[in-house]
Amino acid sequence: MPTRRQCANAIRALSIDAIEQARSGHPGAPLGMADMAEALWRHGFKHNPTNPAWADRDRFVLSNGHGSMLLYALLHLTGYDLPMDEIRNFRQWGSKTPGHPESALTPGVEMTTGPLGQGISSAVGMALAERLLASRFNTAEHTVVDHHTYAFCGDGCLMEGVSHEACSLAGTWGLGKLIVFYDSNGISIDGKIDPWFSEDVGARYAAYGWQVIGPVDGHDSDALDRALREARADTARPSLIICTTHIGFASPKEDSAASHGAPLGESAAQATRAALGWQEEPFSIPADIYAAWDARPAGQKAEAAWNDVFAAYASANPELAAEFTRRMAGDLPEDWPQIARAALDDMVSRGESLATRVASQRVLDHLVAVLPEMLGGSADLSGSVGTLAKTSQQLDAQTFTGNYVSYGVREFGMGAIMNGLAAHGGFIPYAGTFMAFSDQAKNAVRLAAIMGIRVVWVLTHDSIGVGEDGPTHQPVEQLSALRMTPGLHLWRPCDSAECAAAWQSALECRSMPTCLSLSRQKLPFFSRDAAQLEGMARGGYVLRDCEGTPEIILLSTGSEVSLAVAAGEQLQAAGRRVRVVSMPCAEIFDAQDDAWKESVLPGAVRCRLAIEAASSDYWYKYVGLDGAVLGLKRFGESAPGGVVFERLGFTVEHVLEMAQALLKK
Amino acid sequence: MPTRRQCANAIRALSIDAIEQARSGHPGAPLGMADMAEALWRHGFKHNPTNPAWADRDRFVLSNGHGSMLLYALLHLTGYDLPMDEIRNFRQWGSKTPGHPESALTPGVEMTTGPLGQGISSAVGMALAERLLASRFNTAEHTVVDHHTYAFCGDGCLMEGVSHEACSLAGTWGLGKLIVFYDSNGISIDGKIDPWFSEDVGARYAAYGWQVIGPVDGHDSDALDRALREARADTARPSLIICTTHIGFASPKEDSAASHGAPLGESAAQATRAALGWQEEPFSIPADIYAAWDARPAGQKAEAAWNDVFAAYASANPELAAEFTRRMAGDLPEDWPQIARAALDDMVSRGESLATRVASQRVLDHLVAVLPEMLGGSADLSGSVGTLAKTSQQLDAQTFTGNYVSYGVREFGMGAIMNGLAAHGGFIPYAGTFMAFSDQAKNAVRLAAIMGIRVVWVLTHDSIGVGEDGPTHQPVEQLSALRMTPGLHLWRPCDSAECAAAWQSALECRSMPTCLSLSRQKLPFFSRDAAQLEGMARGGYVLRDCEGTPEIILLSTGSEVSLAVAAGEQLQAAGRRVRVVSMPCAEIFDAQDDAWKESVLPGAVRCRLAIEAASSDYWYKYVGLDGAVLGLKRFGESAPGGVVFERLGFTVEHVLEMAQALLKK
Repeated sequence: MPTRRQCANAIRALSIDAIEQARSGHPGAPLGMADMAEALWRHGFKHNPTNPAWADRDRFVLSNGHGSMLLYALLHLTGYDLPMDEIRNFRQWGSKTPGHPESALTPGVEMTTGPLGQGISSAVGMALAERLLASRFNTAEHTVVDHHTYAFCGDGCLMEGVSHEACSLAGTWGLGKLIVFYDSNGISIDGKIDPWFSEDVGARYAAYGWQVIGPVDGHDSDALDRALREARADTARPSLIICTTHIGFASPKEDSAASHGAPLGESAAQATRAALGWQEEPFSIPADIYAAWDARPAGQKAEAAWNDVFAAYASANPELAAEFTRRMAGDLPEDWPQIARAALDDMVSRGESLATRVASQRVLDHLVAVLPEMLGGSADLSGSVGTLAKTSQQLDAQTFTGNYVSYGVREFGMGAIMNGLAAHGGFIPYAGTFMAFSDQAKNAVRLAAIMGIRVVWVLTHDSIGVGEDGPTHQPVEQLSALRMTPGLHLWRPCDSAECAAAWQSALECRSMPTCLSLSRQKLPFFSRDAAQLEGMARGGYVLRDCEGTPEIILLSTGSEVSLAVAAGEQLQAAGRRVRVVSMPCAEIFDAQDDAWKESVLPGAVRCRLAIEAASSDYWYKYVGLDGAVLGLKRFGESAPGGVVFERLGFTVEHVLEMAQALLKK
Repeated sequence: MPTRRQCANAIRALSIDAIEQARSGHPGAPLGMADMAEALWRHGFKHNPTNPAWADRDRFVLSNGHGSMLLYALLHLTGYDLPMDEIRNFRQWGSKTPGHPESALTPGVEMTTGPLGQGISSAVGMALAERLLASRFNTAEHTVVDHHTYAFCGDGCLMEGVSHEACSLAGTWGLGKLIVFYDSNGISIDGKIDPWFSEDVGARYAAYGWQVIGPVDGHDSDALDRALREARADTARPSLIICTTHIGFASPKEDSAASHGAPLGESAAQATRAALGWQEEPFSIPADIYAAWDARPAGQKAEAAWNDVFAAYASANPELAAEFTRRMAGDLPEDWPQIARAALDDMVSRGESLATRVASQRVLDHLVAVLPEMLGGSADLSGSVGTLAKTSQQLDAQTFTGNYVSYGVREFGMGAIMNGLAAHGGFIPYAGTFMAFSDQAKNAVRLAAIMGIRVVWVLTHDSIGVGEDGPTHQPVEQLSALRMTPGLHLWRPCDSAECAAAWQSALECRSMPTCLSLSRQKLPFFSRDAAQLEGMARGGYVLRDCEGTPEIILLSTGSEVSLAVAAGEQLQAAGRRVRVVSMPCAEIFDAQDDAWKESVLPGAVRCRLAIEAASSDYWYKYVGLDGAVLGLKRFGESAPGGVVFERLGFTVEHVLEMAQALLKK
C-alpha cells in the first residue's frame, strides 16, 4: 500500500513529465498542491470517474487553472477517460489536456479556468445551485441532491476583485457546502507577494461570514484531514481552508516564482524526482499507486446507491423526478414550442409601443411562470432592467427558495456565479445590468462563450438614448465588442415581437450565452406578416420593402429601426425604391445560407446605409466601401435622451440626408 | 452665522432644486451625505476655488458619482466657476453639470465617476501620486507636496471588486493621507442591502491594514469632526470613516431606495424643504450661507502661502522646482524629440527580430531612463509583458521611492489606480497585462478615454500566437473592441521600429490613453526608407509597394504583417502588382487627410485582403464587400503558437490562396 505522500507524488511526477514533454506549463502549483489534492480526492470526494455526468457528484473547480496538470493527473489516476496518451499530449493540438482546463473538452473538468478569480466565483454559483435544487427536489423521505462544491485557489485568485464579489455573497447566503482550499504559498509571478498582497486573508473571509480554518500545513495530510472534517461539519457557512504550501515543492526552484510558469528543465526535473524518491520512468505509474487512486469501484458503488434512492424517489414522486431529470439535462419542457409561440403571439396581438427592456420583461412574465429553471437576477438594477417577472421570488437564503437573486453591485461576480449555476446544471441563469457595465463582466461572458453554456444577459440602457446619466452610462463600443466575441449571440430587438424572438433564441441555443441589448426608451411596434415573423429567427430580414429591386437598403437594429422605417417611408413617398432591413442578431444572420442572405441583402445593391447609435466600425461589414454608416465615433453626453439622439444625428432628417447623398453617388 | 446644518441644507436644497428642474437625477445621496460634505469641505479641506489647478490642493473624489449634485453644490457654494445657471442646467446639453461628474468638463471635478467602485480606487492612485511626489520633491527645508486625498463612497462602491483590489493595495502601501468616507445608509437600488451585502465592512478594511473609524452618525457634525481628526492623525494607514446615514435625509422617502434615482416630485420636495426648515426660493441661497461656504479667501491665502514656500524652494532648488512644474503640467522634457528619435534610431540601426513585447521593453529602456514621470507596473506579469525597463525600481512603500509598481493580479484595480495617478498629475502611468485580460480592466480604460488622460496599457500576448496557454489567454475580440472605444488609440506594431513609433505617439497624445498590442512571439524586422519611417506616425502606410497601380492590397497589422510581406513577395514574383499596407493604428490612420488615405488605400483598388489573427469583422471597414479578411470567427486552441497559427489558417500559403481567389474575381 503506497503512502499518501507517494500517492501525491504520482501527481507531481505526471505534472513534471507532461510539462517537460510539452516544454511548456506551470509546474509550481501542481507540485505545491498535490498533498491537498490527495487529501480531498482520496478522502471523501464523491464522484464516479466512469460517469462524470452523475447529477449528485461533488463539484471540483481548479480556480488557479494554470495548475491544470494537477487536475489532469487526478482525472487520470482516479479513472476518468483520460488515458496516459492525453497526459503525454499535454498542451498539444487536439488533445484533451489543454494548457488551462476546458470544461467543453475534458471529462471531469467542471469549469473552464485560467483567468484568475473566476473559478472560485463560479464555485459559489455551483454551491448555490446545489442548495436551491436540494430545497426544491429533496423530500422528507428522499435526499437526491446533497453534494459539496470544492475549489482550489491561489493567491492570485484572492487578489482578483471578482472573487471578493462572489465570496461576499457566498458568506451572505451561508453556502455551507462550499469548501475552498487556499493554496497559500506566498509567491506570485512577480515574486514574494508581501509588497502587493499583505492583507489578512483569513480576517477578510471571516468578515464575509465564512468559517476560516488554518493556516494549516498544506503538506501535512493529517492536518488537512482535520481541516476538511471541520469544514464539512459547518453546514451554515462556507469554509476557507488556508493551506500553507511550498510552490514547486521538492524541486530546486521550491518557494520561487521561477517554478511557476516554465518547465523545470531536465536537470531540475531529475533533482525533483530524486528529492521525492520517485524512481519510475516518465509517464509511468506503479500498479499499486494506480490501485490506491482508483476511484471507480467506490464511485460506481456510490452512484449505484444514489440510483437506488433516486428510483425510490421517482416511484414516490414521478413528476418531481421527471422534472429533476429534465432540468439537469438542460431540456426545455415538451410544450416549449407552445410557450414560445404564446409569448410571441401576446406581443404581436398587443402590438404595444414599449421600451424593449419592458417588452423583455413582458416576455419574461410568460417564461418565468412556466420555466422553474430560470433563475433571474440583477446587479442592483432590478427595477431598471426588467428582470423581475410577475412570478419572480427573491432568493431566501434561509430556505433556499426563490427564483431571483439580487447580486448587489457586482456585475463580474454575477457573471461568474451565473456561469457556475449553468455549469452545475438545473438552471438557466439570466440577469441584467446596464449595457455600459457589461464591460465589468466581459470576461465572465467570454468564459461562458468558451464553455458553451446557456447564460442570458439582459443588457439595457443600450445607447446614448440613456440620456441624462451621460457618457459613463451610455454604451458605444460594447454592442459590437460582444458581436465580435465568438460563441455568443447579441440580440438587439427593435420592438416587443423581436424581444420574443430574442428570448426564444436565447433559450433554444443551449450551448451558448446570449446577450440582449435593450432600450431604456419607448420604441414603436412594427407590424409584420407571417414570413417576417419567421424571418426574425434568421437574425436579419426585410422589415419594409418596395416593388422591384431596391435602390437603397436601410439596415438597422433596435431603437434606430424606427428612424430607418420613417426615412424609408419618406423616400418611398418621393418615388425611391427603399428596403428596410432589421438585423436584430447579426451573428445568426451570418450563419444563414447564402440564399437567405442574398434575399435580404442582394449583392447587386450597393447603396446601403446602416444605422445604429453605437460604434460605426462594425457595420461596414454589411455596407462596404460604397455604403455609409450613421453611427458614433465619440462618447455620448448628458442630456435628455431625445436631445442626445438629435444632437448626435440620430434623426429621420439626418438619415434622409445621408440616404440622399448615397443615392446621388 | 448659519448653523452647520443650515450650511449642509444649502447642498440639500440645491440638489432638490436641480433634480426637480431636470426631472432627472439622484436626490438620495446628496440628501444623505450633505452633513459629511459640510464636515469635510468647511473644516480643513485644502483647496482654492479660484485655482482648481493648484498643485498642492487636497483631492476629492465622489466615488458614488450619481450623487453629482452634492459635488456641484459644493463647487458652487465654495466659489468655483460654476454659477447658478449651471446648477439650473443640471443634466442638460452643453452644461457643466452632467448627470455624473466629468473631470474634463467641470472645474473642481478631479475624476469622472459613475461606474461604482472606480472613484475610490482612483483615489488610491492619487494618494500614491502624492506620496511619491512628496518623497521625490520635498526637501528637509521645504515641503511642497503635502495634501490629502478624500473620497466619498457608498455601499455600491464597496460591493464592486475593483474597490477591493485597490483598497487592499492602499493598505499594503500604507497610504496614510487617503481618507475615505463610507456613506453607510444600508440601501442600494434593489432595497435594503442585508440580503446581498451583509459582510462586516469595517473588519474587511481592517484586514486590508486600514484604520477603521466608526460607525459614526453621519449627520452628527461633532462626531464627524472627531472622526476626521482621528483619520488625519494616523499617517501610516489609510482611514475608512464609516458614516451611518439616512439616504434621502428629511424627505418623505428617507431610508428608502425610492429616493435614490428619481426626482422626489414636487410635493415630496416641498415636504423635504419644510422638514429642513428651508424657506428659500428654488435656486436661491441666502447671503450668509454663501458667506459661510465661501472658500475663496482662505483658499487664496493658503495657495499664496504655498506659493511663497515654492518660491523659496525654487530659489534653493531651481532644477527640482522646474522639474516639479514640468511634471505637474504634463509636459515632456525639452529634448523629447531627441529622446524619441534616439529610441527609434536604436531600433532601426539594430534591426533585430524581436517579439514586440521585447521591442517595447527596449524602447522603455530609453524612455524610463530619462522620464522620471513614467511610473511602470504590471498585474503580476512583469517578466512576461516587458514593462520592467533597465532603470525600473520597485516601489518601496516605506520610502515611497521607485518607479515601478507590482499591482498583483488586479487588472481593473491597476487601471483605476493608473487613472488616479494620471489625474493627479506628475505621472505618466503605464502598465501591462495580457491582451485577453484587458477585458477585466476595460471599464477603467474607457474611463481614461472619457476623461482624456494619458495612461498607457502594455497588452501583450496579443493573439492566438500565445499558443499553449489556450483560448482563455488568446484574445480575439479585444483588439477591435479597443479600436471601437472612442478617445483611445490602439497600436499594434509589427516590429521594433513601429514599437518606437507607438510609444512616441502614446506619450505625445497627452489627452488620451493608448493601448499597445504586442506579440508574445518573435517577429521579423522590416527595412524602411525615410518616408516610411515618417509614415508610421500616420497610423497606416505603404510598407512594400509595386510599380504602378497595385492589383491587390494586402493590409495587415502586428504579427501578421510578415505573412502579408512574404505573400506579397511571392505574388510579385509571379508577376502581380502587390502593395502591402501596415496599419499599426487604424484610429490615427482614419484621422489623416483624404490625400494620405487615398495614397495608401486608393479608392479604385477594390481587391483588398486584410490579415489579422483576431476578429475579422472590423476589417471590412477597409476591404469592403469586394475584399476579404483573413481573421478569426472562433476562439483559439491550446497548442504551440506556430501550430495554432497554421491550423487556423495564418500561413503564407493561405494568404496566397485567398489573394489569388480575390484576384480571379
